[in-house]
Parts: sequence; structure tokens; C-alpha cells
Amino acid sequence: MLLQIRSSATQADRDALHQLCRELGYELRTLDAAGRLVELGGEGAPAHRSRFEDLRCVQRVLDAGEAGELHARGDRPDTQVAVGDARFGGGAVSILAGPCAVEDRERTLEIARAVRARGATGMRGGAFKPRTSPYSFQGSGRAGLDILATVREDVGIAIVTEVLDPRDVEAVSRVADAFQVGSRNMQNFALLRELGRQRKPVLLKRGFSATVREFLLAAEFLLDGGNDRVVLCERGIRGFDDFTRNVLDVGAVAHLKRATHLPVIVDPSHAAGRADLVRALARAGLAAGADGLLVEVHTRPDEAHSDGAQAISLKELEGVVADARALCALDGRELVLPPSAPTNGRADVPAPDTDKEAVA
Amino acid sequence: MLLQIRSSATQADRDALHQLCRELGYELRTLDAAGRLVELGGEGAPAHRSRFEDLRCVQRVLDAGEAGELHARGDRPDTQVAVGDARFGGGAVSILAGPCAVEDRERTLEIARAVRARGATGMRGGAFKPRTSPYSFQGSGRAGLDILATVREDVGIAIVTEVLDPRDVEAVSRVADAFQVGSRNMQNFALLRELGRQRKPVLLKRGFSATVREFLLAAEFLLDGGNDRVVLCERGIRGFDDFTRNVLDVGAVAHLKRATHLPVIVDPSHAAGRADLVRALARAGLAAGADGLLVEVHTRPDEAHSDGAQAISLKELEGVVADARALCALDGRELVLPPSAPTNGRADVPAPDTDKEAVA
Amino acid sequence: MLLQIRSSATQADRDALHQLCRELGYELRTLDAAGRLVELGGEGAPAHRSRFEDLRCVQRVLDAGEAGELHARGDRPDTQVAVGDARFGGGAVSILAGPCAVEDRERTLEIARAVRARGATGMRGGAFKPRTSPYSFQGSGRAGLDILATVREDVGIAIVTEVLDPRDVEAVSRVADAFQVGSRNMQNFALLRELGRQRKPVLLKRGFSATVREFLLAAEFLLDGGNDRVVLCERGIRGFDDFTRNVLDVGAVAHLKRATHLPVIVDPSHAAGRADLVRALARAGLAAGADGLLVEVHTRPDEAHSDGAQAISLKELEGVVADARALCALDGRELVLPPSAPTNGRADVPAPDTDKEAVA
Amino acid sequence: MLLQIRSSATQADRDALHQLCRELGYELRTLDAAGRLVELGGEGAPAHRSRFEDLRCVQRVLDAGEAGELHARGDRPDTQVAVGDARFGGGAVSILAGPCAVEDRERTLEIARAVRARGATGMRGGAFKPRTSPYSFQGSGRAGLDILATVREDVGIAIVTEVLDPRDVEAVSRVADAFQVGSRNMQNFALLRELGRQRKPVLLKRGFSATVREFLLAAEFLLDGGNDRVVLCERGIRGFDDFTRNVLDVGAVAHLKRATHLPVIVDPSHAAGRADLVRALARAGLAAGADGLLVEVHTRPDEAHSDGAQAISLKELEGVVADARALCALDGRELVLPPSAPTNGRADVPAPDTDKEAVA
Repeated sequence: MLLQIRSSATQADRDALHQLCRELGYELRTLDAAGRLVELGGEGAPAHRSRFEDLRCVQRVLDAGEAGELHARGDRPDTQVAVGDARFGGGAVSILAGPCAVEDRERTLEIARAVRARGATGMRGGAFKPRTSPYSFQGSGRAGLDILATVREDVGIAIVTEVLDPRDVEAVSRVADAFQVGSRNMQNFALLRELGRQRKPVLLKRGFSATVREFLLAAEFLLDGGNDRVVLCERGIRGFDDFTRNVLDVGAVAHLKRATHLPVIVDPSHAAGRADLVRALARAGLAAGADGLLVEVHTRPDEAHSDGAQAISLKELEGVVADARALCALDGRELVLPPSAPTNGRADVPAPDTDKEAVA
Repeated sequence: MLLQIRSSATQADRDALHQLCRELGYELRTLDAAGRLVELGGEGAPAHRSRFEDLRCVQRVLDAGEAGELHARGDRPDTQVAVGDARFGGGAVSILAGPCAVEDRERTLEIARAVRARGATGMRGGAFKPRTSPYSFQGSGRAGLDILATVREDVGIAIVTEVLDPRDVEAVSRVADAFQVGSRNMQNFALLRELGRQRKPVLLKRGFSATVREFLLAAEFLLDGGNDRVVLCERGIRGFDDFTRNVLDVGAVAHLKRATHLPVIVDPSHAAGRADLVRALARAGLAAGADGLLVEVHTRPDEAHSDGAQAISLKELEGVVADARALCALDGRELVLPPSAPTNGRADVPAPDTDKEAVA
Repeated sequence: MLLQIRSSATQADRDALHQLCRELGYELRTLDAAGRLVELGGEGAPAHRSRFEDLRCVQRVLDAGEAGELHARGDRPDTQVAVGDARFGGGAVSILAGPCAVEDRERTLEIARAVRARGATGMRGGAFKPRTSPYSFQGSGRAGLDILATVREDVGIAIVTEVLDPRDVEAVSRVADAFQVGSRNMQNFALLRELGRQRKPVLLKRGFSATVREFLLAAEFLLDGGNDRVVLCERGIRGFDDFTRNVLDVGAVAHLKRATHLPVIVDPSHAAGRADLVRALARAGLAAGADGLLVEVHTRPDEAHSDGAQAISLKELEGVVADARALCALDGRELVLPPSAPTNGRADVPAPDTDKEAVA
Repeated sequence: MLLQIRSSATQADRDALHQLCRELGYELRTLDAAGRLVELGGEGAPAHRSRFEDLRCVQRVLDAGEAGELHARGDRPDTQVAVGDARFGGGAVSILAGPCAVEDRERTLEIARAVRARGATGMRGGAFKPRTSPYSFQGSGRAGLDILATVREDVGIAIVTEVLDPRDVEAVSRVADAFQVGSRNMQNFALLRELGRQRKPVLLKRGFSATVREFLLAAEFLLDGGNDRVVLCERGIRGFDDFTRNVLDVGAVAHLKRATHLPVIVDPSHAAGRADLVRALARAGLAAGADGLLVEVHTRPDEAHSDGAQAISLKELEGVVADARALCALDGRELVLPPSAPTNGRADVPAPDTDKEAVA
């Protein structure tokens, strides 16, 4: 491990550093004349890195050396995570689609059948909804879970649904093929610890302004807990402009594919916050290397109970799936489709209509 | 209520709007020729505002009219919140000081006595620590709570400590005079709902990149739950530079004092992330109108188990308290001190040393 | 035009508003009971919108109505801008490639020939370099322009080069097929005014943290000056993380294609700031709808005088061009190639190597 | 100098590094086993630092050692810069106040007299205005300069006015006591080079999203050009929220006072973008250590030609000056007043009215 020491380090600081080295079994070697750089010889462990980072005199870990973390790419191949029929990573690309919130049984079944028929292998849909205001629709809760259970059985589609409270993990586990952790909870460590003990995949969304390292360390909570089926989801970061809801960070997608072996998908709907840009962002995400998509789709966006402005129609979903098919072909990757999905070619899908739309 | 309608609104969208008006008892009046602006006549309620905002065709609520929320200033005077001897708002300013994390009993007692002797009416200190990495020190947990209980009794200082998990609320409640909700949990709604049911004050920290409206609506979860003793804490927002850990948003402090009746304090330690700037930021926060401070102080920063780089020494705390005294005097506000605190005048406190310090 | 009036508006404010309406020939109609919304009936003009926005009492222009600006999409088809053989917009996609800075004649000729042979119709390369530090290499200046003139003639490739100073416009004009305005100068209005008077295309890069509206209004300075050959370039916005130099805003690309008729290209090199992500970002930009690319390429990145870490090799350029070809085919767009460029198919180009690369 | 080398460095990269060391006379010593850290022994020079930073293989300069820059604090005391009667730094605090734009002669004279009578030693006011839209009022140009010349002579107040175009430097120089460089031009290097050759002070505003290092290096262009009378102005950085126009970065003020010997002032008006928060932000800036204020003041804000919403009234200016007086007293600093300014005590100035104001 290589450490940079603060210029303000006192003798007491240096004593504390030496003491920690002795405790953890590292041999310290000062590298430069001013004592700003030290090399620690030893076996290394992720936990040790954190101990050194917590010392006041350590400005930065320049190289973690052997103290590798579980998420790190290192020499590892892609980890492929299966969620029902969906598979992410290792050359497999899948699409999860569905409503923002589970509303009633009929509508949810209708959407599930429709998105599956168009190529989605999993359905997203919230029973528990994190909403900015206490007065907004908070989801239908346990009743919503029952609806999802029905959908799962009747339609044969994997269910991905959000869990907000560690006390709901068990109930959600009974109906979900994968837990979703939302952006607001990326660093809800009580929840992460609980999910680390589960044996079901977790779709972990990046926080509004989480750095990539914070994102990976949130995943590390799950991995360290024993759950190695983690799918990372880039869903846009907070920016300074308001023409989109968030800024889809395609550079993070490309970087994450290098930095970790975990699969990475994108959520173009929450990034855009408006239906007309979802297809373009879905394409951009896949082109940057994403292993899948999480898309809001509604059969009647005008009647959606929440986030209707960003839900795309079934027709638009067809365009997204056609794009995914083409982009996968370009890279020799597989677009995973539901067992009986139609194999319609691209030809009959309209090109994105980017030209004439009025923008307020 | 005044609403702006999206230019893309369809007839189905408008039908849904009319339907909702009928359901909630509002009379809709279209204002302009193009139908982009509508006025809703009716009694108003916060919950209704959210319902309208959730409609796909509503671009923005231009004026919430009677649909006021519980946090809103309106005509209300300052709400003063007492936490043990500390009081915030309504002309009262108090200082909470202490270590990042509770370590051992002796050290914690030593710090509590020391900060109380210098003017702090409350002690901060985490038993449960939210840490970015699973390998970092996560706090001493329930053992830490026991230590805090001892400190509270022996030293006679109010205890403010963080709660991360709704399942820990009861245990924390037994020793804390106020619950702290950290930045990472500002939108942990399961936790907020649980704390809304408590009858102890909550110190709610602003999320890393939370807008002021999101911050106020997080507080609204507590207020709507029945807990009206909420203290807002500005602790710096995420920025693009790295010379400080965060950007202390003094404009938010000034704005919040106008927008809400709730007290607002600042945490200069997490904003700065480095001890040498804490005093300057504490002053700036109070000068902008803050009702108090939350400061990390340690008797031996070099030995702190976490965040040692931002903890100030007791001597520096004396400077912070002296500044607070002077700034309160300037505004005719009261700096609340512990019953037996010394009343040393400003004269013997050194001016901030801003000139010569080396900066890496 | 629809205006929202501040709640703090005084009678004097309202008098000023009425006075301006009389002066510009607008009929004012107050829409709501509280007088917060007004509709202005009249012919409309972009200049009028600005006059109203400058009034203290105007909070926001809700709808600009007839006051449309020159950049606005409205009902207009794509404007196609030609730069030598390169064409941008209206279904045409072109690639500009070259070194960050013009170094010596031989190296520059070598790069120009090499990028042209691989499909670039234009060469980028700075003679005048905007550098953060006064001590960094500032470009070779007028000598660099001479080199570019040689390249243009000998290689038959369009030249795009940056101009920093209004006093250099004439000299740059003699060798450039298009002027480049860099991010730092997006709101250098003296320069924009001067370029608005020119009859050569301008490649305008988005500022580090410019909103889309600010970007479009910077273009409006050029259009208003009489130069309607403007190419917008998204090059990444400033973010809070450091794994890339900037955040490529693909949502802005998709939005701009709707909001304006001007062509939009992306610069993946300055967005990434590291060569290994350039290809992924180039793909993402084109997939989001960009009309072209501006890429840093160097035959010897290790010897580049500036920004060597983000320059890609010729081999990597081949991958970028192959991707562009495939993505254009997907959308029925044309990848414009230099007259004699080889038409090598995609088959012999390696897939992006995203798997194993070590990331510091 | 200590350098961190990228893990991706090739042999060619290392050869280039050794070659540059030979050229500049540095002795290179590799510090660690993996060759990631090197120490360069030699005399050091700012220009050399930049040369090494430009090498592809250099990830970061960990310690600049002797390669100090002109702005760096080092062991230097505060540089005090005088602008007419105003003085900034070295314990002196001054206030510059005035309208956003110079309008007509009478109004400008009226404002100048009024702000001087209340304690401002200098007047700000733009003849050349940088405006986001080409259709907005661009200032009165050379006619505005004539008005400023009259004001300067008749009122006896220092004039600070913006210059946008290197070709206007001479004309502006005839009437200005200090040049202002606006945020949009912080990295307009053609302008900075021209001003580096002048012998009048420059008030340099921080760019919308400039890092502190970029800000200091922009100042370095002036210093390196020979003009050592530079006043830095923090005016708020771009954030993600819209309740203020920008985020006043008080941490930058505190940091800059440590990192450089140059004076630092704040512009609370552009940070707030709304008059009601200007006083609070002015206080926060001074409390954080600022050496002065730049405030927009207008005798009739409702009639202002631009930015009227952020201009404060004369009565509000009295509050700002009273605060400045009190905060200077607190720190033993001098509030510089115009020769004949009234010395009214604080008692008769109302406390900031933060309680009841309606916020939209």
C-alpha cells in the first residue's frame, strides 16, 4: 500500500501510524525526504485500507496494493447475474420494464403481459414507493406485493421491486426475483446489511450524487455480507440544468465495466424524466457498454399514479428493444428474450423521431 | 392553486385533470388562450398539491395557494426546539460539540466534560456510524449507547446521536435527547416515519445533494407524523472541487430562515472536512442566521477512530464559542450556555489565524 | 407571451411592466386573481422577451409565444453545415480528428494523413491553446497556423482550429475551414460578435457548466450576427467525481436535436480525459443522436505536448470509425467519408476491449 | 517535486519522462517498488511543473516542492491592494457598491453619491455588460465610460468596471481605478494577458464552476504578466438548486486566505440573485474572512435595466455597512471608509428582517 501523508502531520500523528502498522503487521518504509510518502509492506486486506484511511495524517491512499476489494475487477471475468429468465453481464443483455408503481391487479397484469410480449424478461414495479413528499402516493404496500405475486405466476416474468425498510425484506423476498435498492437508499447501510444476508440478487441504484467509489463500496456492503449477486444501475446524477431530471453518466457505465466484474445496467427513464428522451438514452447506455436496461413503461401513461411523464408507451418500448437487438449484434452480445418472445426484425420499427417535436 | 400545463398535454391528460378536480372538489378555470395555465379554486391541502403534481400533464405548480405545508413559514413565528439545556430558534443559539464516534467510556467522558466547560450545551457522538466502506469502523453500537447514557447522567449534557435503522429507534431513544438523521438517510422514509411517531426532537441533516425543497419535505415526513420538534442542519453540499469536503451552503441557511419556521443549524465540520477551516465556516453559518452549531471536537484528534482530520481541538472550540457569543450579541440573540459555564469574555481568545498556514 | 410575476412585486414594479408594454406595443391581460400571471398579446420578438426578463418583477417567462429565437427548432428541418468535405446534420455524420495541439510540421502532416486515411474528413488541432496555467504550452501560435495551411493544402483535409482572441480572427480565417470556440470562451461575447460577422462555420463548444439555454443563446449571438453556420459541440460538463475529466451529457445531445435545428456533435476526448473511454463515449454520443465527432488522435500519444492521456491511437480511431459506420447504418444516416477513404468493412475491427483493463 | 505515475505508463512514457528531466536539469529518483512514485531533485520552477503535468504518464503532482507559483502564500504576508481610497487585504476591508449597469448620467451620479455617503469607497457599474442573450441590454458602452469618468471626478469615488474585450482595455483604463474581469471571462486568456501588462488593479471574479486551482492559475496569468495588483472575488458557484442564483462558497474564501497572499472579496449579489438574501451573504462572506464586498445597489431597483431583482436599496446598504463595521471590530480589522463618510454607529440600524418575508 502507498500512502500520502498530510504536510500538517504531527509527531503524534506519525506515532499513531506506526502503532497501527505494528498492530496490523505492516512494515513501514518512508520514501521521500520530507516524509510525505510511505510504503506499507504486508499482506493487505480491505479492512486495513479503511483503518489507514481513518487516520488523521493520511491524506490519500495512492495505491491500495494487495488490499483489493471484492467488487474490484482485478483479473476476474464478468460476473453474470440471473434474475429469472433475465441475465446481466458476461455478454448477456436483458431488459426490465414496467410501471413506476403497482396500481391495480388488472392494469399490472396488462402491463406485464405487454412488456413480456415485446421482449422484457423482467418487470419492474414498486409496491413500496419512496416519494419526496409525505403527501404523494406511497405505493400500495403489501397489497401491491400480492399483485406482483400474481403477475409473477400468471405471466411468467421475473419481478424486480424496491424494498425501503429492513423490516420488509422478508415480505418482499417472497415475491421478488430481485430486490431493488433505490437511489435514496444507496447508503442505507441497515438495509444493505440485511440484503447482504439474502440469497437473491440485488439491483443497486446509484445515489443522486454518489461518486463511483461510493457506489462500489455500497455494493461492497452486499458482497461482504455474502451476497455476490449484485447488479449496478446507473440512473443519472444530479446536475445543474433542468431539461432532464438527471444527467445519465455514460462515462460511469464505461468506467464501471473496467473497474468491477459486476454487471451494470442503465435506467434511462429516471435519467430523462421525460418520455421523449428515453429511447435515446437507452441507446446511449447500451452503446457505452451497459448490460441491460430498466425502463418505465405504461399502457396508459396519462393515468399513471406517479412519474407518468417519464413512462414510455408500448410502441416506444418496441423501438427500445429493436435498438437493443441491433446494438447487441454490433458487439456480439446476446439480447436475452423471454422464452416465447417474438423475433421481429428491426425493419418494421420506426426510426427515432427526433426532428419536429416541440420543446417547451 | 396555479398550475402550468405541459404543451404536450393530450385530451386524455386533460380529462384526467378534470377528473381529479371533481374528485377533490376543485373548480378548474383555464386562464390563457392556449390552455397552458389553469387556476384551481378550492380549499387546498398539501396532499392535493401532490396529487396534481403526479399528473403527467402538470409541468409545475406555480403557486400552491392554500395548499400550505406544515413546515412553511407563512405567518408563523420561529419554532424553538429544546434539546436538554440547548435551545434552537426564536432568538436562541446553542452549540453541540463532541467526537465523530463514541470510542471508550473515559475518552467520551473527558470530551463531554471539556466541551460542556467551554460552552456546549449538548454533545454529539455516534454509536452507530454510517461509513462509506463496510471495512471502516462502524461505531461501537449498543455498547456506545451505554457509554452515552453514562455521560448524560454524569456530565449533565444533552446527547444527540445518530440512528440508522428503524429497529434501533427505541434503543437510541433511551439515551438520546435528540435523534440525529444523517445526510445519507435524509430520504430514508422508513426511518423518518418511525421518528415521526416519537416525541423527541430530531436533528435532520441535509442530503449530499438535496434541494431545499427535498430537505423541507423530508422534515414534512416528521411533522406530518406528529413530531413537530425538528431541527434542520445544513452540513455542506457536494461540489466539484476537493479543497473542502463539501460546500457549506450559507444561502440555504438564509433562505430557510425565511421559508420555514423550523430552526436551522450548521455543521461546519462535515462541510470543511479539515479542522483549519471549521472556525471560519462556523462564523459564516451564524452570520448567515443559523440558530446553532454542530461541531466535531476531540481532545486527541490524532487518535480519533474516524474523521480525525476535521475534529477541532478544545482550544479551537474556545474560539468558536467566543465567535458565537460575539455574533449573537451583534444580532441581539442569546447564546445558550450550560448552567455553570464560564462567562469568559472575548478578549482573551486569539483571533483566527488565517495568514501563514501551509496548505497542501 | 406568458409571464409569472414575483409575489414581491410592488406597484412601482407593475407600473414599470405596463410602461414597457406600452413602449413595445403589447397588450397586457392579468390572468389570475392574485395577479401573478399575465398574458402579453402582441407580435413578439426575441429582443422583447429579454426586455421583459430584465424587469425586476418578472420571475419567469412561462411561454415565449411568438418571441421565437433563431436557433429554435420550431417547424424547421435540420440545418446541415458543411466544413470542407465534412457535413453535419440533416442525416449526415462526420468525424473530425487530430492532435490537441499543432506541434511540428512533420508530425502534423503525419497525423492528418493518417486520420484522413481512416475516415476523418476534417482535422482538429490547436495553434492557439487555452491552458489553465500560464506556464503550460500555449500552442505554437501563428507558426502553427502556417503548418495548418500546409496540411490543408497537402493532405486535402478540412481544418478546424480554435481562436481565442478577436484580434486573431482574420489570421485564423486564412487557414481554417471552421473556427472552434472553446468551452472557456463560450460566453466570450467579444469573440462571438466577431465570429458572427464571419462567413465561415463556427464549432461552438459548450461551457464547463453552461445550461442548455445558455449554450443556445451563445449560438444565438452568432446567428444574430448573421452567421448561420453553427455546429454545437457537447464535450462534457463539470461533475463531482474524478474518474473522468467531465460528464458527457448525452441527454443534452438528445434534447438539443429536438430544441434546435443546428447540428450537434460530441467530443468524447475532453469528456473522458482518458484514452480508454473515448471509444465508448463516442458510441454513446452517436447513439444519442449526435451528428458527428471531434476526437483527439495522436500517432505518438506518449510524446504529445498536451493532453496526451486522452489522445487515442490510430488503431483506436479505426474502432471509432467502424462504430460510427454501424450506428449510422442503424439509423439510416450517412457517415461522410473523405473522397478517397478506404471502405473497409467492420469485420476486421476488434470489439471494444472492456474487460480486463486495470484501473487505478 | 513528487510525482505519481499512472499504472498504465509504458516504457516510451518513462523514456519521455527521463528525457524531460534531462532537458530541465532534474535528477529523477524512483521511490517505490512498482515505480508509481518518483521524486525529482532540482531547483524547481512553476513552468517546469506544467511541463511534467503535461506528460501522459504523470497522473498527479503530489507535491510541487520548490516549483512555487507567484500567487502562493508560502511565507508571504497579505498583499494589500489599493483601488482609489479602497484598500483590500492586510487587515483592511472595503466596500464597492453600485448598479449592475451604467444607465444615464443623473441616475449614476445619484447612486454614486448615495453609496459613498453610506460608506462605499468604490463604485461598481458596467458600461460593457456580458449578457447571456444577444437581445438583452448590453450596456451603454463607450458612452457609459464617459459617464463613469464624470462620476469619478464629480463624486470622488473609485471606479471598478468590467472589460470584456482586449481591444477595449485602453479605453476602460482611462476611467477605471480597477478593471473587473467577469466570471464568464475568468479563463479568457487573451484578456488576462492584456491586463497582465497593465499597471492598474484587476478584480478577478471566479468562474461559474472554476476550481480554486483554476481560479488561482487565472490570477497567475496576471501576476506572471507583471501585474501584481490582483483582487480575487468569490461570487458563487453553480449549484443544482434554484432558490439562489449561485452557491456562495464561503469555504473557498477561508481556504484562499490560507492558500494565497492576494486579497479576497465576495459578491453577495450575484451569489444570491435576490435582494433579500444579500445582507446575510455579505455577513457570511466577511465572517469567513473576506477582505471586502462588491454589492449591487440601486436607488430605484424597480427601474434597473438589468438584474433589478438582486439590487439592494440604500437602506439595505446601510445594514450591510453596519454589519461590516461590527465584523471588522470583532477581528481587529479596519473597515475603510471614504474620507468624509459619516461615522454613524450601529445602534440606529435595524437588525436583519429574516422572519416574516414571503418566499415564493
